[in-house]
Formats: sequence, C-alpha cells, structure tokens
Amino acid sequence: MKKILSGWESLCASSGPLRFIDVNLRGVGQVMFQDNPFSGALFLAAIAWGSYAAGVPQVLFGGLIGVAAATLTALWLRVDPASLRAGLYGFNGVLVGLALATFIAPGPLLWAYVVLGAAVSVVAMSATADVLKTWGMPALTFPFVIVTWMLLLATYGLAGLAGTALPTAGVVAPFESVAATRVDLGIFVQATLLSISQVFLKGSTIAALLFLAGLAVNSVAAAVAAVAGAALAVVTAHLLGAESDLITGGLLGFSPVLTAVALGTVFNPPGLRSAAYAALATVFTVVAQAAFNVALTPLAIPALTGPFVLVTWIFLLPRPAR
Amino acid sequence: MKKILSGWESLCASSGPLRFIDVNLRGVGQVMFQDNPFSGALFLAAIAWGSYAAGVPQVLFGGLIGVAAATLTALWLRVDPASLRAGLYGFNGVLVGLALATFIAPGPLLWAYVVLGAAVSVVAMSATADVLKTWGMPALTFPFVIVTWMLLLATYGLAGLAGTALPTAGVVAPFESVAATRVDLGIFVQATLLSISQVFLKGSTIAALLFLAGLAVNSVAAAVAAVAGAALAVVTAHLLGAESDLITGGLLGFSPVLTAVALGTVFNPPGLRSAAYAALATVFTVVAQAAFNVALTPLAIPALTGPFVLVTWIFLLPRPAR
Amino acid sequence: MKKILSGWESLCASSGPLRFIDVNLRGVGQVMFQDNPFSGALFLAAIAWGSYAAGVPQVLFGGLIGVAAATLTALWLRVDPASLRAGLYGFNGVLVGLALATFIAPGPLLWAYVVLGAAVSVVAMSATADVLKTWGMPALTFPFVIVTWMLLLATYGLAGLAGTALPTAGVVAPFESVAATRVDLGIFVQATLLSISQVFLKGSTIAALLFLAGLAVNSVAAAVAAVAGAALAVVTAHLLGAESDLITGGLLGFSPVLTAVALGTVFNPPGLRSAAYAALATVFTVVAQAAFNVALTPLAIPALTGPFVLVTWIFLLPRPAR
Repeated sequence: MKKILSGWESLCASSGPLRFIDVNLRGVGQVMFQDNPFSGALFLAAIAWGSYAAGVPQVLFGGLIGVAAATLTALWLRVDPASLRAGLYGFNGVLVGLALATFIAPGPLLWAYVVLGAAVSVVAMSATADVLKTWGMPALTFPFVIVTWMLLLATYGLAGLAGTALPTAGVVAPFESVAATRVDLGIFVQATLLSISQVFLKGSTIAALLFLAGLAVNSVAAAVAAVAGAALAVVTAHLLGAESDLITGGLLGFSPVLTAVALGTVFNPPGLRSAAYAALATVFTVVAQAAFNVALTPLAIPALTGPFVLVTWIFLLPRPAR
Repeated sequence: MKKILSGWESLCASSGPLRFIDVNLRGVGQVMFQDNPFSGALFLAAIAWGSYAAGVPQVLFGGLIGVAAATLTALWLRVDPASLRAGLYGFNGVLVGLALATFIAPGPLLWAYVVLGAAVSVVAMSATADVLKTWGMPALTFPFVIVTWMLLLATYGLAGLAGTALPTAGVVAPFESVAATRVDLGIFVQATLLSISQVFLKGSTIAALLFLAGLAVNSVAAAVAAVAGAALAVVTAHLLGAESDLITGGLLGFSPVLTAVALGTVFNPPGLRSAAYAALATVFTVVAQAAFNVALTPLAIPALTGPFVLVTWIFLLPRPAR
Repeated sequence: MKKILSGWESLCASSGPLRFIDVNLRGVGQVMFQDNPFSGALFLAAIAWGSYAAGVPQVLFGGLIGVAAATLTALWLRVDPASLRAGLYGFNGVLVGLALATFIAPGPLLWAYVVLGAAVSVVAMSATADVLKTWGMPALTFPFVIVTWMLLLATYGLAGLAGTALPTAGVVAPFESVAATRVDLGIFVQATLLSISQVFLKGSTIAALLFLAGLAVNSVAAAVAAVAGAALAVVTAHLLGAESDLITGGLLGFSPVLTAVALGTVFNPPGLRSAAYAALATVFTVVAQAAFNVALTPLAIPALTGPFVLVTWIFLLPRPAR
C-alpha cells in the first residue's frame, strides 16, 4: 500500500491537476484525520453511495463543490503550503458542502451558498488555528460548525434558501421513553455502523464499511478506535435511556466516534492509559451530544460535530493527560 | 482641515475641560474608528438630528451620559493614557447609552442603568483588550455588545426597567417572502443610507449624510468603504430574499458597513486584494446578521453589532490575509 | 487556631487516609476560596444541615461522592500536586455532586452521573487552568458550570435521568411586579443570609451561619465581604424591581457573594479602591444573574454560578485595577 501511495505521489509531483486532486482527496480524508488520498477516495465513494442510496445526489455535489471551493480559497489566501498539502484547509469545506446540501433544498442559491460557506470556512480555519496555536491545540471541525450554524440559522430569515430538511423548533421538555428498547445484536451492529457513517451525515451501513476501509487503508488503529467508540456510544446512550430512533440512526454516536479516533489514535500515544482516557471522553461526548440537541431545540438547527469539538478540546488541553 | 485640527489640539493642551470634551468627541468618533474630534462632533450632530426627528430626544442624552460616564470611569481606573486620549475607552459607552435609551422607557432608573453599563463597558474594554493583545486583535464593539445584551436581558426580570421597544420573543420558523420586492433606485439609495445611520441605531437619511461627512472629514477612504459596504449588503440581502422591511430600514446593513470600513480601510493596507477580502467578509456579515437575528428570536433582544464583531475577528486573524 | 491547624497538618503528614480527607475538605473549602480543612468541615456541616432540613439527604451524599470522585480522578491524571493539595481539583466536583443531586431524582443512574460529572470536572479544570494561565486568570467555578449545564441539558433527552427539580421551559416576556414589596428588616436579613447559603444551593439561615463560620475561621475579611456582598445584592435587586421570591430566597445574591469575596479579598489587595471596584462588580453581577436567568428560560436550566464567573473574569483582567 505504501508503494502505491509513493507511486501516486511521484505522479502528482509532475502534474498540477493531479496535485489539485490529491489535495482535495486529502481534504476529504482529514474529516477523519487521515492525511492520505486513498482514504479520501474511499470516503468519497462512501459519500457517493450514501447520497445515491438516499436519493439525494446533490449532497455528493455539495461535498465536491465545498472541498474544491475551499482549496481554491486557500490558494488565493496563500495559507501555509504544508498544511494545505495535508488537506487541512479542505475538510471543513467538504463538511460545509455536505451539510448545506443535506438540509437546504437544491437550487442556484444553494450552490452560491456552498461556495460562500466553503470560502469562509478557510478563513475561519486560519483564524482558529492562529488562536489555538497559543496552546498547541488543533482546530478540529470548529470552523465547519460555526460557519454552518450561521448559514443554517440565516435560512430562517432568507426566503431564497429553504431549509426544508432542518428540524422544527420545539420547546424543551422532559423526555419519557415510550417503551423499553429490546437489546438485539442486529440493531446494535446497525447503530454502531450508522454512528460511523453519520460523521459524514450519511445513514448507510455500506457507506459505513467504506468509511472504515478508508480509515484502515491509512491507520488500522483509527478504524478500531472508530468501531470501539461507536459501540461504546451506543451502549452508553442505551443505558442512559436515550431515544431509540436517535441511537439506531447513529445520531448520538457520530461525535463520540470522532472523539474516540482523535483522543485514542491521533493526538495521544496509543496505550491502556490513552484508551481509558479516550473512553471517558467518548462517554461524555454522548452526554454532550444529547445536551447540544436539547440546547438547539428552540433554534431548530442540528448540533453537527459541535459536541466532539468541545469535549475533545477539553480533554486535549490538560498537560497531565499527555 | 489639518490646520484647524492642530489649532483645536493646542487649545485643548491648555485647558482641562476642553481636553475632556476632546476625549469624549474622539470616543464618539471611534464608533466608526475615527480618532478625530470633528468626526465625533459630526456624528453627535447626526445622533441629535436622528433623535429629534424620531421624537426620542432621550436617546441623545443616553449617548452623552454614556460617553461621559465611560471617560470618567476610565480616568478612575487609570487606563493607558494614549488609548484614553484616542477615544478608545469612550465608544462602547456611547453605544451603551444610545442602545439602552432606545430600547428602555425613560425614567430615573434608566439613567442609573446607563451609568452602570457605561462604567462596566470600560472594565470590559480593558479586559477584552488584555485578552486579545495575545493575537494582536482589536476589541471592536465587543464590550458594548456583551454588556448591553446582559443589561437588556435583565430587564425581563426587573420591573423597574421596562424594555418597551424590545422585540417580542418569537418561535424560529421558516420565512417566506410575501411578494417579490420591486427593485427601485430610490429604495436602494434609502436602504444604503439607513444601513449607515443604523450603526448608531438611527433610521434617518439626513443623519446618514452627517455620518458620512464625519467619516470623510478624517478619512475619505472610510466614507467610500461605508457606502460601498452598505450598497453591497443591500444587494446581498435582496438576492438572498431577506425581508423587505429589514433591508429598507438598514437593519441588515449596519454590521456589514462596520466590517467594510474595518477590513477595507482601518486594519488592512488599501488595495484590490484587501477590497476583495473585505467584500467577502461584508457579504458573510449579512448572513451572520440574519443568523444572529434568528438565534436571538427566543431571547427577544436585538443582535446589535455582534455579527460585525464575530466576522471581523474571523477575517482579521489569518496571517495570510495581511 | 493556627496551632490546631498545624497539629492537624502534622497528623496528615503521617497518614495517607487523613491526607485524603484533608484534600477533600480543602476541596469543599475552595468553593469559597478557602484553602483550609476546617473551613471545608464547617461548609460540609452546613451542607449536611441544609440537606437534612430540606428533607433531601441525597444532596449531601451527592456532594461527598462528587468531591471524592474528583480527587481520585485528579490523582489518576497526575495533576500538579501543590494545586491538588490546596483543594483546587475538588471544589468543582463538590458543586457538580450537589447540583445534580438537587435537580435530578435519586436512583442508581444519578450516582453514576455524579461520578462521570465529577471526573470530567477535573479534566475541565485542568483544561481551563491551562488556557487561562496565558493571562494569569483563575478558573473559578467555570468547570462546574459548563459540565453541569451539559449534564442537566442532556437529561431532557435521557429517560434514565429525570430532572424533576429543574425549572420548566418558558417564553421570555416582560416582568411586571405584582405589588411593591414592603421593606422589612427581618426579610432583609433573611435574604442576605440565604444569598450566602445558596452558593452551595441551600436555602437555610442556619446553614448560612455555618458557612460564615467556615469563612471566618480562615479569613474574617472573606466573611465580612460575603455579608457585605449579599446585602448589596439584596438592595440592588430590590431597587431594580426584581421578583420578591427570588430576592428573599437568595437566588439573585449567591453569584454576587462570590464576586464580592473574590474581588474584595482573594485576588486584590484590601483597601477602599478594591472595595469600590468590588462593589461595582457585585452590583453588575446582580444584573448578570437576572440576565442569565432570562437567557436560560427557553432551555429550562438554572444559571448556577455562571454570572459570577463571567463578571469576575471581566473585572479581574484589566491591569489598571490591580
């Protein structure tokens, strides 16, 4: 695999257009921290399958336009070339494109909105990185979250953009489980896999397997951490009595998956101590996801990966944990 | 003009009361980044006209009490003398006074509230400047926004202060344009001018012209940026299908005006690259203004210049843009 | 008193279990900034009395489990030993335990929730301290506030945890006083004392006297500042027309009490200038408490000590005030 990668890299060295494709693929890969064009390609395949299976091909286009617009903006702004080549200026753009095309009805203004959001996500990435380097912290998907929240909130004041797939505003009220959910291996496996595919806003088991392949191609540890984090999130959510539909749809597990991969494999050395620390963070990310869902109920927008960002920052900052 | 200014400055050098007036006028001028007492005097004339024309003379008094209380607090706290002389401890106080007197019914408690808010705005300015100097960032109107939001929110729990002109709490819901707005030059010019006067919470074309004169007296570039930013904001809001009344009242344009002036003339060297970058930020500030309006709907308070502060910080931080 | 303390300290030096108890008592003491095990013991007695008198003994257990879980987590994470010994990793855990056991119905999941929250409060404390040391700022009770808000918000999405004592979500609307409250010395004294006991979420005058004793045993100045801050908060809230029940229950005064103690005795040198500065901050904390109460109305969670944290940070940051 390393041989094929270095072959691809020498191809890129001699071709501008291939280099552009490489940067964008790495941008897609960086959504799950993988600086590897093959990870990005497999992630794209998963997005394509998930979009096709759900009958929403525009979501794939949203992601493609988002990552390309982000990369072009980064070139225009002359960002740090090493970070750019590693795809660090692309992953927020992909997510902005996927999210906007998921929640807003298609139309010419949607595409303009995706380009605007992706461009601003690059500025926000640069700004966030600049602030956080004071403490050696990574930006994570904060630029995606803050920019997309604003773009989605604004749709409620803009007749040109219809947020047809956004949640309806609700009143915060106690939740009572209608009936005890039966524990069932099939449902457990599905919930675990969809927790992984929902990182890219997709609810598809086939997409989930493609995402896992994309992780494994660059880091088997990351794939293991994703599965373990998803399973732990599903168990935690079940024990705390979360709504069944949210659990089985993977909607309480995608932020914990990112927390598990980030703390268990990317930013800490592997080991039992790291694993225990990452597990604590993963469990708390489930609570944070439930909390964000409630807090955003009156605003009628989704939490996106906000809970992952907040919890991972809190758990990355302490020196003693490193 | 420079000669008159240096004449005024030598007058001030020999008189304590004149120096006090000079500092307060510069404080008013700094609402739009102009360290010039004549700018401040013209801005005050605009506020006076706007308050008189709208039948709310107390708003002018609110602004005067706010800036004076802020300057006196700054003297008591022994802030940096150079920043004080440049009016940097006054502009948040003016805005606190204007905003409180605009949204709260007059009465003795209102004036106590203005003095309290203006005094705290100075502490908040000092605190914000201290935090942001880590990244070489300006405080902008953040102290005004955070202090005024708290003072306005609190009125809903305090019978002594009636926020009679505050918005009513609403439920976030999709917005559908009632009818296509006719594009009309008169309306476009009015919307552009009111976007400028709303920086000081005034909806008056005559006040807008006085504000532009106040800018031009110190920086023709700033006046041009204000008009260009306002026009760009009006066009953007119209294309995205924003509510007509908000556009024509200048209520989606005042934050973008400040973004355009800040990024186009104050903090970046002039040029095509700066102008393009400022234009991107200005367009996004329109989206941010719509987003803040929606996010604050359940809380029944206005966005003030929060969108300007957030977007301008995001666009000022990246090193590549400088 | 100093002799008894040094006797206790030499006892602790020779016994692991006593040292563990000492650290936890200091953790309780640090809720009001007192690094003294006797302060902690008196605070615990106050919590015990308040819980017993209100018929909620589980609240005492919540606090005890919270502080012990926090201390054990801090040991596991190998935090700075000097800070640990001073109780700085325990006070957020106590508060998490008290708050969760106050607002959530008892049951096995509650205790798991307390342990989770206390453990995460230690990570959050370490993270907050790491960020804030850039400006020499203390973490205050921010870790408690942010972690508890998330844990309480999440209960609305988790059937396993019933937030039976949480407020009901409401719509922000103008508040009109039903009738003028009669000024009465008995009510004034009660409101002042309950403002002190509510720092630990208790509404009991006997508990308040025990808390004052706990302060005085380590710092008479702190006890005086607590009483003065509480009285000033009650007067301010009354003059501004706040709801009588909130005033007499001490619910607008507990954050100002902490502000007064922090700014008047802990972080600034004593003196008239410090006192005036602390008084301004205390008055503004009343406004901030009312504002947080309103802002959290749609989210149906309490403000906790969030207003104290925000206002004290704002007033601690400016260099000129020191």
